[in-house]
Amino acid sequence: MATHANVSRTQMQQQAASLRMQIRQEQFRESTSGLSSGMVQANIVILPADWADDFLKFCQRNPIPCPLLAMSAPGEFLLNEVGHNLDIRTDVPEYQVYRDGVASETRYNLSDVWQDDFVTFVLGCSFSFEEALMASGLSIRNIDMGRNVSMFKTNIATQAAGRFYGNTVVTMRPFSARDCIRAIQITSRFPKAHGAPIHLGDPALIGISNLETPDFGDPVPVAADEIPVFWACGVTPQLAIMQAKPPICITHVPGKMLVTDLLNAELSLL
Amino acid sequence: MATHANVSRTQMQQQAASLRMQIRQEQFRESTSGLSSGMVQANIVILPADWADDFLKFCQRNPIPCPLLAMSAPGEFLLNEVGHNLDIRTDVPEYQVYRDGVASETRYNLSDVWQDDFVTFVLGCSFSFEEALMASGLSIRNIDMGRNVSMFKTNIATQAAGRFYGNTVVTMRPFSARDCIRAIQITSRFPKAHGAPIHLGDPALIGISNLETPDFGDPVPVAADEIPVFWACGVTPQLAIMQAKPPICITHVPGKMLVTDLLNAELSLL
Repeated sequence: MATHANVSRTQMQQQAASLRMQIRQEQFRESTSGLSSGMVQANIVILPADWADDFLKFCQRNPIPCPLLAMSAPGEFLLNEVGHNLDIRTDVPEYQVYRDGVASETRYNLSDVWQDDFVTFVLGCSFSFEEALMASGLSIRNIDMGRNVSMFKTNIATQAAGRFYGNTVVTMRPFSARDCIRAIQITSRFPKAHGAPIHLGDPALIGISNLETPDFGDPVPVAADEIPVFWACGVTPQLAIMQAKPPICITHVPGKMLVTDLLNAELSLL
Repeated sequence: MATHANVSRTQMQQQAASLRMQIRQEQFRESTSGLSSGMVQANIVILPADWADDFLKFCQRNPIPCPLLAMSAPGEFLLNEVGHNLDIRTDVPEYQVYRDGVASETRYNLSDVWQDDFVTFVLGCSFSFEEALMASGLSIRNIDMGRNVSMFKTNIATQAAGRFYGNTVVTMRPFSARDCIRAIQITSRFPKAHGAPIHLGDPALIGISNLETPDFGDPVPVAADEIPVFWACGVTPQLAIMQAKPPICITHVPGKMLVTDLLNAELSLL
């Protein structure tokens, strides 16, 4: 990224490690949006080993909403492949625990619930391409307004895998036609961060009745001369988890992502 | 292109040379659309040398509507850089002569009007990316209907250069949202064939009042669930020529292009 031209990989990774250490010590429990710039932030899904094979297949069949960056061995909690000294039990600002498909408590660490058979999935996140969009001079409305991105359930079915199935969840960002074309070009370079949009224009064509009432996140206005542009979203697997009802599953709380040592620029095809 | 995987470059160039020979002998005077597949077809503009510097600058300032592939020396009529034994005086199916900015006669060869100071400009054409779109499984409505593409004058000003100025002309092709996104990805790889679209969606935003009445070409219907997608068009320089009013200028007749020995695949960035 041009914006990080003066910062070395080592310095960027030190910043990421430092943020993870603050999170581990529970000194930081907020959204990671905009922090540790240049570094890949990731969605996480933690499942018991006997659910992991199905979920791996679900990711493989649905790589656009579920771009798999890494997967642990059962019980493995140090993910050095993803970040130096990264401990998945402590290094996410806030965890969401699901029990039998229902969101139950949130936690700041997993010390009381960790199981020796837990498998961790690390999935790409749109923060990576948002950084690239902004570096190219595009404005992202929800960021400008200090809001969360609008998220919507669609009628676009995922490819089922074992017990996991459900429809695709999308994020929506409004752009002028010119910026929409540019956004498609830029995000196409990031297949490991949801890649190109999966829809643009009329929301009804993908089963969205009202852009003003998102299913998740905040409403974001679309001007008359703008086009709503829709990307597959990392909330898609959470919907599939609610429907599959594993006895326990742990994700991050939306917006409170896992900060890795991978560079966004490394995810880019070009 | 996958569709030419079994045909060697030599065979493709022999086909192109053979078509040019038929054209030279005036045995073929029709549209070249769909012929000599795999080969770059080009817009041509021929101007007296004292108009050539301005036109070169016009191309350089407006590379999207005017993607310059080659330019001759004054009086040079054999363009071996563009095609083996290619003679620009005879190898286009039909020429349009403009006098003082007004379309006058068409001709099948330039033997009676050739001037020793003529400079030829060879410009990329959307046929190159149309082939790539179809090779990727997309349908192009006007081709399916056996019609010419719809072309419209817009309110998008070109960058003036000397005596050349005017608004951009666009072609319009309708696509579903999914195919629109794919078409943007594919045509982005062809900057020498007008590249990515310059607009999509509401035609009024670029000064087009009615999609049913194109300024050039044929009307092409857009379904309710489709998006009109607009690419810069090689007719743009013809509009600038009409306004600049050089004493003489020669172009091809629309659709009756110069068939070159360059491969469409060679124009692609990826």
